[in-house]
Amino acid sequence: MRTIDWGNGRIIAIEQTLLPGELTTLEIDTVDQLIDAIGRLAIRGAPALGVAGALGVALAAVRGGDVRAEALRLRAARPTAVNLAWGVDRVLAVADQGVDAMVALAVEILEDDVRRNRDLGLRGAKWLLERLDGPVNVQTHCNAGALACVEWGTALGVVRALHEAGSLGHVYVDETRPLLQGARLTAWELAQLGVEHTVVVDSAGPSVIARGLADVVIVGADRIAANGDVVNKIGTYPLALAAARAGIPFVVAAPESTVDLATSTGADVEIEIRSPAEVGVPNALNYAFDVTPADLVTAIITDERVVHGKPLG
Amino acid sequence: MRTIDWGNGRIIAIEQTLLPGELTTLEIDTVDQLIDAIGRLAIRGAPALGVAGALGVALAAVRGGDVRAEALRLRAARPTAVNLAWGVDRVLAVADQGVDAMVALAVEILEDDVRRNRDLGLRGAKWLLERLDGPVNVQTHCNAGALACVEWGTALGVVRALHEAGSLGHVYVDETRPLLQGARLTAWELAQLGVEHTVVVDSAGPSVIARGLADVVIVGADRIAANGDVVNKIGTYPLALAAARAGIPFVVAAPESTVDLATSTGADVEIEIRSPAEVGVPNALNYAFDVTPADLVTAIITDERVVHGKPLG
Repeated sequence: MRTIDWGNGRIIAIEQTLLPGELTTLEIDTVDQLIDAIGRLAIRGAPALGVAGALGVALAAVRGGDVRAEALRLRAARPTAVNLAWGVDRVLAVADQGVDAMVALAVEILEDDVRRNRDLGLRGAKWLLERLDGPVNVQTHCNAGALACVEWGTALGVVRALHEAGSLGHVYVDETRPLLQGARLTAWELAQLGVEHTVVVDSAGPSVIARGLADVVIVGADRIAANGDVVNKIGTYPLALAAARAGIPFVVAAPESTVDLATSTGADVEIEIRSPAEVGVPNALNYAFDVTPADLVTAIITDERVVHGKPLG
Repeated sequence: MRTIDWGNGRIIAIEQTLLPGELTTLEIDTVDQLIDAIGRLAIRGAPALGVAGALGVALAAVRGGDVRAEALRLRAARPTAVNLAWGVDRVLAVADQGVDAMVALAVEILEDDVRRNRDLGLRGAKWLLERLDGPVNVQTHCNAGALACVEWGTALGVVRALHEAGSLGHVYVDETRPLLQGARLTAWELAQLGVEHTVVVDSAGPSVIARGLADVVIVGADRIAANGDVVNKIGTYPLALAAARAGIPFVVAAPESTVDLATSTGADVEIEIRSPAEVGVPNALNYAFDVTPADLVTAIITDERVVHGKPLG
C-alpha cells in the first residue's frame, strides 16, 4: 500500500494521525482538503510532500479552478520542507500544456519517488557497509520511512536495504515529540518489516549514542542548504552533536528534491513554529525543525550521489 | 509550604504526580509508604530524596521496627541519586544514641537543606553575574526547584536569586519526558514566582541554545562523581553538548551531599532504567538519567564552593 497515490482523478493517502491504532485512507477531492491534510500532518514527510504538491496541482487542473492561485495556496501550506514547493512548481511549469500533461507529470513524479528512494537506500547501505562491519546498529529520529514518501523510505530506506542485506543490527527510534512520529510511525513500519527496534524518549538518543549502542545515526531531511546545512525534524541536531562526540557517522538520506541550492545556509530557512497545543501547555514554543550545521554531517546520501564534507552546489 | 516536612511523628510531602492540576499532601506513616512514594516519584529530586532518606530512618525508629533492615530497604528505593543513601546513612550512624537523637538529626538535615540551597542560589547568581551581563536568559531541564528539595531549589534556586536581584531574563524549560517534570513542576514553580518562561520539547533545548536564546544552561544533579562527571535527568547531556558548541556556560547546581567521592567517574554510577509504561509504548528503553562528562561542565556550584575544570576530591 502506498502512502500517497493518484486514482480516478483524486488523491488517496494514508491518514497518518490515526496510526498505529487505525490504518485508514483519505480520499482527497479538493486542494482545500489537501491543505488541511498537510497542515495537520495527516500527510507528512518531505518526499511525500513533494508528491502531494505535484498531485495537488494536477487535482486543481482536473477540477478546473484557478490552477495558479490554488497552487500558490498549496505551496504555502508548510514553509520548511522545500519539496512541497518543488512538486508544485514542477507541475505548474507545464500548465500551458494542458490538464493531461499536468496529471501525467504528477504521476511521473510519484512513480519516480519510489525508484529514487530505492536507489538511495541501496547506495546508503553500500556506503555504510564499506565503512562499518555489520550488523549495523542504527539510531534514527522522527519518520523518514515509507510513510514519509510514496513507499520504501529515505533514512528507513537505508535501514531496509541493510536489513535485506542481512547486515542490520538493532534500530533505536526517538519517540519524536510532540507528535510522536517515531513512536507511532517508525516503530510501526519497523514492526511490519520484522526489524528489531527500541523506542527511547528524544532526550535519550544522545545517551544511546554515548553508550555505544548505535554505530551510525541515519535521518531524513526537510531541506538541505547549498552549504550542506541540514534542516530536519526538531531533535536532529542533538543527535548530530552526540554522533560527533562519539565519533560515529551522522548520515542524512534524502532525495535530490530536498537539496535547495537557492538557499545558502540553514540560517536562511524559515523554521515552522507550530501550535503550543501540540506540546500540551499554553506557553510552549514549538519549533518543528532544527538546523544541523554542515560540519556535523558525515555524509548526505541522495538518489544520485554521496556528498561529504563539501557544499552541494 | 515545604515539599517535604516532619510533623507529629510522620512525614508530610507534596504529592508531585498530581501537580500542576492538584496540590495535595501525602501523610506518610511507614517506610513502605515512603518507598512507594519515592518509587512512583511522588517524592523526587536528589536533595528531597536525601531528606526523605533521613526522615525515613527517623520514622522507622519512631515506629520501633527493625531500623537497620528498614533503612536498607529505603536506601535501595532508587539507585542513582546518591543523596538518598547519604540521608539514610547519616541518621543510621546515630542509631545507638536512640530514637530522639535520630529524629533530631533528621530534622536538622531537613532544616539544613533550606539554608544550604539558599547559599547555593546566592553563590550561583553571584558567580554568573560576574561573568554575564544581565538580564540572564536561562535554559533548564527537569525540575531542580523547591519541589526537588525542602524548599527554594538548586538550579531554580540560582534562577530565583537572579530574579530577586533583578537580573533574570527569560527561562526556557524542557518538558522532560517521559514524566514531564519540566512542563508540570518547573513551569508551575516559575509561574508562582512570576518568572517569564516558555516550555519546549526536550529535543528543542539544543536549538534554543544554538539560536542564542539562552545565555547559560543551569541544571541540578543526582550524583556528581569524583572526576566531575555529572549524572542528572535524561536529557541533560544534549544540553551540555549544545552549550559547549555555542560557547555558553553549562552550570550544575547541587548541594555537597550530591558529590560522591566514592564514585570515580560517571561510568561507575548505576543508571536507573524505569518502566516502558512511562514512555507509553511496550518496547521502550527508559533510562532515567544520563552522564555529562566533566569536560562539558563549566562549573559545579554547591552550598560550599564553585568547582570548575578539576576533580572534586
